[in-house]
Amino acid sequence: MTDAALIDELKTLVEPGKVLTDAADLETYGKDWTKHFAPAPSAIVFPRTVEQVQAIVRWANAHQVALVPSGGRTGLSAAAVAASGEVVVSFDYMNRILDFNPYDRTVVCQPGVVTEQLQNFAEEQGLYYPVDFASAGSSQIGGNIGTNAGGIKVIRYGMTRNWVAGLKVVTGKGDVLELNRDLIKNATGYDLRQLFIGAEGTLGFVVEATMRLERQPKNLTAMVLGTADFESIMPVLHAFQSKLDLTAFEFFSDKALAKVLARGDVPAPFESECPFYALLEFEATSEEIAENALALFEHCVEQGWVLDGVMSQSAQQLQNLWKLREYISETISHWTPYKNDISVTVSRVPAFLRDIDAIVEENYPDLEVVWFGHIGDGNLHLNILKPDDLDKDTFFARCARVNKWVFETVQKYNGSISAEHGVGMTKRDYLGYSRSEAEIAYMKAIKATFDPNGIMNPGKIFAL
Amino acid sequence: MTDAALIDELKTLVEPGKVLTDAADLETYGKDWTKHFAPAPSAIVFPRTVEQVQAIVRWANAHQVALVPSGGRTGLSAAAVAASGEVVVSFDYMNRILDFNPYDRTVVCQPGVVTEQLQNFAEEQGLYYPVDFASAGSSQIGGNIGTNAGGIKVIRYGMTRNWVAGLKVVTGKGDVLELNRDLIKNATGYDLRQLFIGAEGTLGFVVEATMRLERQPKNLTAMVLGTADFESIMPVLHAFQSKLDLTAFEFFSDKALAKVLARGDVPAPFESECPFYALLEFEATSEEIAENALALFEHCVEQGWVLDGVMSQSAQQLQNLWKLREYISETISHWTPYKNDISVTVSRVPAFLRDIDAIVEENYPDLEVVWFGHIGDGNLHLNILKPDDLDKDTFFARCARVNKWVFETVQKYNGSISAEHGVGMTKRDYLGYSRSEAEIAYMKAIKATFDPNGIMNPGKIFAL
Repeated sequence: MTDAALIDELKTLVEPGKVLTDAADLETYGKDWTKHFAPAPSAIVFPRTVEQVQAIVRWANAHQVALVPSGGRTGLSAAAVAASGEVVVSFDYMNRILDFNPYDRTVVCQPGVVTEQLQNFAEEQGLYYPVDFASAGSSQIGGNIGTNAGGIKVIRYGMTRNWVAGLKVVTGKGDVLELNRDLIKNATGYDLRQLFIGAEGTLGFVVEATMRLERQPKNLTAMVLGTADFESIMPVLHAFQSKLDLTAFEFFSDKALAKVLARGDVPAPFESECPFYALLEFEATSEEIAENALALFEHCVEQGWVLDGVMSQSAQQLQNLWKLREYISETISHWTPYKNDISVTVSRVPAFLRDIDAIVEENYPDLEVVWFGHIGDGNLHLNILKPDDLDKDTFFARCARVNKWVFETVQKYNGSISAEHGVGMTKRDYLGYSRSEAEIAYMKAIKATFDPNGIMNPGKIFAL
Repeated sequence: MTDAALIDELKTLVEPGKVLTDAADLETYGKDWTKHFAPAPSAIVFPRTVEQVQAIVRWANAHQVALVPSGGRTGLSAAAVAASGEVVVSFDYMNRILDFNPYDRTVVCQPGVVTEQLQNFAEEQGLYYPVDFASAGSSQIGGNIGTNAGGIKVIRYGMTRNWVAGLKVVTGKGDVLELNRDLIKNATGYDLRQLFIGAEGTLGFVVEATMRLERQPKNLTAMVLGTADFESIMPVLHAFQSKLDLTAFEFFSDKALAKVLARGDVPAPFESECPFYALLEFEATSEEIAENALALFEHCVEQGWVLDGVMSQSAQQLQNLWKLREYISETISHWTPYKNDISVTVSRVPAFLRDIDAIVEENYPDLEVVWFGHIGDGNLHLNILKPDDLDKDTFFARCARVNKWVFETVQKYNGSISAEHGVGMTKRDYLGYSRSEAEIAYMKAIKATFDPNGIMNPGKIFAL
């Protein structure tokens, strides 16, 4: 715990009223969407300027106070949880869009700009910010950069990393660095910008980000295809990807679909029931492209990969098909699912998924597994539903065992234990499944370079 | 100089005959395309395996021998020049393509794979490796990664960085790291892969790289447009970029065009003479897109931005239009040009170019300036031609003064002193124009982490 005199000093660094210490505020701002760690920060501070952030970091260094950055608090790995008396630095008041340049198609954002705010701003300019995911309505740009957020359009647009033209950061030492000057081409030594993307605030805080925009997609059209088995999804992906520029290629299992259809507010895509479904999307900018897509569909049916399918003919139908995929997470939350966010290279997905299924089936035949994810980029969301008759503690105890098997299988397939949610505290102890000892040693040395006193989000990514 | 006993020890680490010390070999392998530094290596070593590279690095650490990596030796910043008795590590015998995966669209390359070899391999698979530039016929993948090579298609495909799915490196300490496991999504701590891209071999050597491929472009179509002045090029870029997915947007001045046309082997694009020309390219995958391009052309003419233009109607015409741009560098080499490779954000290009022109005009009205470059990504190649009646030494002495003014102007416009050629030795002393003191200090600390004995390409990027 940070003592009262220190907190009084902290108050002098920001505007009046911008340090909170009430129990309710500590509870609210001390956590993200994870529930494993009880929030216990000493205070919440709300800077408004880069200079204030720098002053806070210098104060923290002088007094050895640990800082935790806080954005939209939608994280799923407890990277923004303050469980050990840290001071939370919230970027809620650094939430303005500072500049826009139509020739460069760049937007200068403060870190607290909400993802959706940037998406809407882009749309007002006739442009598009393509990183999109379930929590876009509350997640903040600073947090997106900290975890290199991905989402549902990565197959076409890549991760957040691709859209960061430049960064202003305050390092753990208190230096303000302007990284990359928003240039497209810049071969002047190490690209430090890249280090801060995905660093979960452990090297320093992002205090300004120049984000790139893209042209708006045109006439987006979706197909939902039912496949004979999971293996068939791969040649379908391959066939479509060879002939069309896909903007998405998602998948979900029959169990996932059944849960969504049971809600009663989304129509089934077609009558046939299939074990797996693929949702793909593309820009139907010409008659030829739409015809091409239908020919590919027919080819996949002839090959026996696809059993049934549908293509959207209107914006409304497009939206309905997407709901089948987008509603899954919210729908299954009713069953308190154990969730995992893992990835392997695309070609390894079928064997990997089969292995995990077999492990769960053999050990816990009573547990229901729901798969969905971004198969076009190898990112699978594994969800195990809690049976209604099983109490939460027993269920999570079992899942802890599953966790170990899942991560061992990830390691076997040379995959990632965290595809897009980050490491934070929840995956810290499993980092060795995805990164070698030597890599972790270099990462720690890099952290020590930028944050010699270890005040920047300590205990995240690496154990204390 | 490294003594004979040490070289004998080095010989035991590789296959017989794979250490060269003849004067002619030292001369050949000790340099790149730059001419400022006399090559003076102690020996050239040709490893064939990762283990041999690791053994060489360990040997170098044990005896404090400096190592210089060497690829296709086409560098333009002396990053691969061994001028101080270093041992050159050539990757000429690590030149195989090791694996290809059609589902992942990835190719595992040894570092000595030539860029064109990868481009051809991709084509054989019905795919495309999109990083392309003048030296693609001899430059190697390892070198491309070391400088984060760019080229003529960056506006659409980005730099080499975008195409590196995974890297195997030997660090300066001698550790073998496998970075990123070829994953699309991987949020497990710092992305060390990104640090090695563009590091010019100062942190370690790339010993294997998994490169991504893309679908082949379809029906590429080019336009050459003559503009009223340089300022008009920007709204033309903006208009076309808003409506078409451009694969290139290059520019060149009337002087550049005149030199190429004087060769007599390329037809003029059209009869009108204009002060500046833009070459743009797109995929004309439908009638609608081609019509769109013509409508945009007409709009630009109506606005007074464009005076004349032509659109390719065949592969042959496409090739001829590209020659107008691609032949410039080779053609002007006759005039021993002083060259610079600089970048600013796209929107700042016109003002920047005007400033440089004014400086040269005021100070050296007798010098002829030829501009060309990749305007779609803000990368300008400034070329000053040596007048025939001026001797080389006097010319280069004048250019050294120009250099300083150019870099001061780059700094004023917050640009880069090296857009795509790297820092090496030729721009080392100017690094401060593009990177702050604090940034350089962090970069040096990172170098010390990976290369504590300073044996990896010392004197490159930073002074010794």
